[in-house]
Amino acid sequence: MQKIASGIYKLTFGTPEEITPVSVLKPDTCLEALNALDDHPLPFTREDIHFQPRQGSVLLELPLDPKEEVYGLGLQLKSFRQSGSKKKLRTNSDPSADLGDSHAPVPFYVSTAGYGVLVDTARYATFFCGGCKRVGSRQDLEQFKSAGTGKGHWEVKKGSGNMLIDIPAAEGVDVYIFCGKDMKDAVSRYNLFSGGGALPPMWGLGMMYRADWHADQEDVLQLARQIRDDEMPCDMFGLEPGWQTNAYSCTYVWDKSRFPDEKGLIRELNEMGYRLNLWEHAYVHPESPIFPELRPHSADSYVWDGLVPDFTQAEAREAFTGIHQPFIEAGLSGFKLDECDNGDYIGNWGFPDFARFPGGADGEQMHSLFGQLYQQTMLAPFKAADRRTYGQVRASHALAAPYPYVLYSDLYDHEDFVRGMATASFSGLLWSPEVRQTATREELLRRIGAVIFSPMAVLNCYMIPSPPWKQFDHDRNHAGEWLEDWPQLAQQCRKLMQFRMSLIPYLYATFGKYSKQGAPPIRPLVMDYPEDREVLDCFDQFMVGDDLMAAPVVYGNGDTREIYLPGGRWYEWLTGEWLDGGQWITRQVPEDEVPVYIKQGALIPWAEPVLCVRDHTVFNIEPVLYGAEAGECLLLCDDAVSYATISESLPFAKIKIAGEGIVSIEEQEQEKVSERYSIAGVKYVL
Amino acid sequence: MQKIASGIYKLTFGTPEEITPVSVLKPDTCLEALNALDDHPLPFTREDIHFQPRQGSVLLELPLDPKEEVYGLGLQLKSFRQSGSKKKLRTNSDPSADLGDSHAPVPFYVSTAGYGVLVDTARYATFFCGGCKRVGSRQDLEQFKSAGTGKGHWEVKKGSGNMLIDIPAAEGVDVYIFCGKDMKDAVSRYNLFSGGGALPPMWGLGMMYRADWHADQEDVLQLARQIRDDEMPCDMFGLEPGWQTNAYSCTYVWDKSRFPDEKGLIRELNEMGYRLNLWEHAYVHPESPIFPELRPHSADSYVWDGLVPDFTQAEAREAFTGIHQPFIEAGLSGFKLDECDNGDYIGNWGFPDFARFPGGADGEQMHSLFGQLYQQTMLAPFKAADRRTYGQVRASHALAAPYPYVLYSDLYDHEDFVRGMATASFSGLLWSPEVRQTATREELLRRIGAVIFSPMAVLNCYMIPSPPWKQFDHDRNHAGEWLEDWPQLAQQCRKLMQFRMSLIPYLYATFGKYSKQGAPPIRPLVMDYPEDREVLDCFDQFMVGDDLMAAPVVYGNGDTREIYLPGGRWYEWLTGEWLDGGQWITRQVPEDEVPVYIKQGALIPWAEPVLCVRDHTVFNIEPVLYGAEAGECLLLCDDAVSYATISESLPFAKIKIAGEGIVSIEEQEQEKVSERYSIAGVKYVL
Repeated sequence: MQKIASGIYKLTFGTPEEITPVSVLKPDTCLEALNALDDHPLPFTREDIHFQPRQGSVLLELPLDPKEEVYGLGLQLKSFRQSGSKKKLRTNSDPSADLGDSHAPVPFYVSTAGYGVLVDTARYATFFCGGCKRVGSRQDLEQFKSAGTGKGHWEVKKGSGNMLIDIPAAEGVDVYIFCGKDMKDAVSRYNLFSGGGALPPMWGLGMMYRADWHADQEDVLQLARQIRDDEMPCDMFGLEPGWQTNAYSCTYVWDKSRFPDEKGLIRELNEMGYRLNLWEHAYVHPESPIFPELRPHSADSYVWDGLVPDFTQAEAREAFTGIHQPFIEAGLSGFKLDECDNGDYIGNWGFPDFARFPGGADGEQMHSLFGQLYQQTMLAPFKAADRRTYGQVRASHALAAPYPYVLYSDLYDHEDFVRGMATASFSGLLWSPEVRQTATREELLRRIGAVIFSPMAVLNCYMIPSPPWKQFDHDRNHAGEWLEDWPQLAQQCRKLMQFRMSLIPYLYATFGKYSKQGAPPIRPLVMDYPEDREVLDCFDQFMVGDDLMAAPVVYGNGDTREIYLPGGRWYEWLTGEWLDGGQWITRQVPEDEVPVYIKQGALIPWAEPVLCVRDHTVFNIEPVLYGAEAGECLLLCDDAVSYATISESLPFAKIKIAGEGIVSIEEQEQEKVSERYSIAGVKYVL
Repeated sequence: MQKIASGIYKLTFGTPEEITPVSVLKPDTCLEALNALDDHPLPFTREDIHFQPRQGSVLLELPLDPKEEVYGLGLQLKSFRQSGSKKKLRTNSDPSADLGDSHAPVPFYVSTAGYGVLVDTARYATFFCGGCKRVGSRQDLEQFKSAGTGKGHWEVKKGSGNMLIDIPAAEGVDVYIFCGKDMKDAVSRYNLFSGGGALPPMWGLGMMYRADWHADQEDVLQLARQIRDDEMPCDMFGLEPGWQTNAYSCTYVWDKSRFPDEKGLIRELNEMGYRLNLWEHAYVHPESPIFPELRPHSADSYVWDGLVPDFTQAEAREAFTGIHQPFIEAGLSGFKLDECDNGDYIGNWGFPDFARFPGGADGEQMHSLFGQLYQQTMLAPFKAADRRTYGQVRASHALAAPYPYVLYSDLYDHEDFVRGMATASFSGLLWSPEVRQTATREELLRRIGAVIFSPMAVLNCYMIPSPPWKQFDHDRNHAGEWLEDWPQLAQQCRKLMQFRMSLIPYLYATFGKYSKQGAPPIRPLVMDYPEDREVLDCFDQFMVGDDLMAAPVVYGNGDTREIYLPGGRWYEWLTGEWLDGGQWITRQVPEDEVPVYIKQGALIPWAEPVLCVRDHTVFNIEPVLYGAEAGECLLLCDDAVSYATISESLPFAKIKIAGEGIVSIEEQEQEKVSERYSIAGVKYVL
């Protein structure tokens, strides 16, 4: 057993494989930050863990008390609490069933007992979270006491057992155990072990709009002007497939017939305050200039007749970043990295599990790591240019916290999408329940109402030429028939997006803390209230930072929802009324609103909404203090776009309110605050 | 390479595992029948097959020409033609996606080139049916000729490659290749290798009705009388969970509070012409009398607190059949063997893949084989009593042909259910698209219209106390509110069921041929017309035996359907009109009809429908000759209930029509024919 840092232990069983998340991704562990934390012992001894090699796999058995609840295992759209479940962690797009297939399955779970376990494997490991009872086990004895009580004809009793983890093909494995005072602490340590949370550029916390994929250069610019004319917040503007000469597989070459002057396009968009983001995937078309160079550094199987680069190889990374370099030099802000998950559910595509890569990985291992290697590869040139990026990606895995990429899915069930916001946070993942087509006006608003509380507020309008606030119906949008009262719908959408924009300083500071302390910026209540059994299954209420709770309404559930307020006093954002916690309340929620509650004592630096965050935007802040006479909050005062500031300790400034409306900032911090924030008088909500 | 029989070759690669379908199930290969067939050489040489061990699995690569089409891989509800697909064969209940999970995944595929391949593994093998193109392969060279032609932005080109089969955990495998003149011939040889097709008792070809699971003994008898009063055909009467003292897991002990006199129940039902069938599964509850005896011969994990017997062990089989013996002695006709598939899709149940069984199998291997071992175990006491059984089962695998069990599913999409009728037949499986709840009158009729052309015509009415022809709506049925015009609906249902009953002699002879010659009794057109590209994807038209084609209407598709008539002349059953084949026709189909076409030259021994097939029922037959002046057909003239006749060559009698309405039967066959069939004058349809 090796102690890695305060509360973090590494245990080795058998002979671990060479290709694992830790060995391949090489996390830049935040040792200093970790060792500044309290130490905690292992929750069980090494002898309590059983390791059993068997034909073609190894089995790990870790203790699990029936009182413990288990969360994690990556982005799980169809289940939240994992206690009793079985999950086979396979990277896979658009899973229609709750089997463990996921865009981002992560072999990391966390227990309400305050510890997390990372099983360092790139294999499709199966986790049995207590649902498997073994003959002769401790739980077996307990069973016999209760045997025969369930006489129901279909009444099924779920077994309760230990945590069992089956890892195919391996002959051994390293296990990292993260011990803290509670789940949030354990997850934070895991994120710091991974390298700390991603800090997006400040503009990344604004809105993203992805344009009609049929649009050419002039259409794109028209659309961009229209969004500005409509005064809708928007920071990121994305192109979908269609900008390249070939998309499946990719050439990474602009189709000049549609985009004759891409540099001009980027420049014009930048002038309007947009940052351009381009769709692509990593399978390299035979006509791509880098095809010959990549061929020896690629898998032995094609995807869509395209090469699969082995991103563990420097040659492959260099060739691949080489063709992207001009985009970055031209001012591109980031990429949407599509299709890097496997595609079993939507047809047979993706390289096979038996594929061989020159670096030694097989297809199974590479499927687990491919999304993150792709992110790593695409991140490097931005880092080299000292410019932060914030992009989208469809696959991730363990140790993902430091990557500034937000997951998305082609699935679309709204409840699943909201659940993803909760599950992602247990495993160092960022997830966006992006808004695409909607059947009704209410659906559009409810979906926007959820996405604005996620790490990236995406409207993916690739299927319609005009913005959805003008016409949400696909066919009418294409026919150019706008809603008669579209300005009213636009105003409702704007109201929700402006709420997001008003949160940016608070959100940005929250991401700053994520970066240095590891606590997920947006997380389900159970992470902050692990002792409260009411929140065990509550996947649709979120702590946004430490002080604010949002309870978006899932579309299809009507306009009324139950909301749980944990212990303490909570202030309703809109009315300023307070309610005592420890109770469920019922709220009728208009379609252009989202219930938001603020903790007693919190100071929230509400900002006057802007349309976009330019490099030198100064936010007008009105700090609001809830149910107290004194309070404080942090503002992050870096340049918000470069990497230079991230590597050091972050330049937070503390804003203090100490009665009678006086805002105080340490003198040496005043200048850096004023470069980004203009602070008006404080408001009290009592 | 070992030649097993005419056209059957065994090839061994590496060191095969000890637990495989062939080694465990020990097929009673019909060597004599096989060796009476033409010999055929291997379609490729052994050197064309590549075998590659890799970490934790082995990879097999078999040639596949782009012109070949691939079918098989067991019961596949969501896809028919497998060319280009990837399927991971895992036994699993209720798969919601087309990944290869199935109640009955079978590692056997068949090519339109006229050969079939059985990969003798109980592992979750993955089959890539040509959809994976490898770098540097023969297909790779072809690719470069066409590269870059598809400029579409989302236009995806599917690769074409060889057949690649990845087998986890194994270090070698035996492959059996079945070579014939066409697909049907190859499948027939596979079925004869497995031991020949199952021959049900004749009553098994009648209708089955499964009763309300809340019913007690008196309710059951009332229901049984009602069905007779309504003059609806019914041979098999099934009880669902509820008859035992505990069902999840099972005790196999009658709940006397609901069924005080089970022997009386069976006797009364038998007197009314019903054969009783009981639901159960194989997980043994702690209160079951056999629990202590079974414990040492069971897996090391529980399912629903119940033991999982290791049916490879004689002790387990004996204990398990021991508790069932009294049921069989009391006159029970068969069982519905539920839950013997794995349950990943509907929650976490089933034993884990890492479970260990005393006989040496692990959980993965046992999941593949469990359904069939369970069938084998439950078949033995019926064989010992020399009484045929015909039951239902929810899991099967390779070599299943000889087992008289019909698969069913808790899934319910009607198109999927109809597709299952087509896919099952490639792999020695019997499948029933059972009728359960229906939303409309039309749905009830369309579903009955399909199930009557399946191996077991099941109405599973476990959710409603009164028969669906009285009230198909669940809530109204429970409220006792019958449809005002229920006699009319009952007449429509009766009409469809009577069609089934009129087919019994023909169907029974068809199953007889299945038993001795191996051709699937109900099969998609492509098996009889492999050269006709129009039928490659035609999963909803069936050859029923050699002469009759049924084209049931999938519910939800309206009342009109396209029907393809293959080459030759076809006679429409209802009108007697003929049409030339080689064309698609459009037919409007009333809800109580199913389009049925008969081949020119066929003689069909239509029977006057009976309500049930008693042991000594004599069928009134009216042979109909279509488009010819002379013709012949077979009738199977055994006792229709015992095993004794099956083991020998079957007592078929040939009925000949030779002009002028004269029916001729060989003199020595007349007596055995007359014991079962009374033949009226022949009818000609010209």
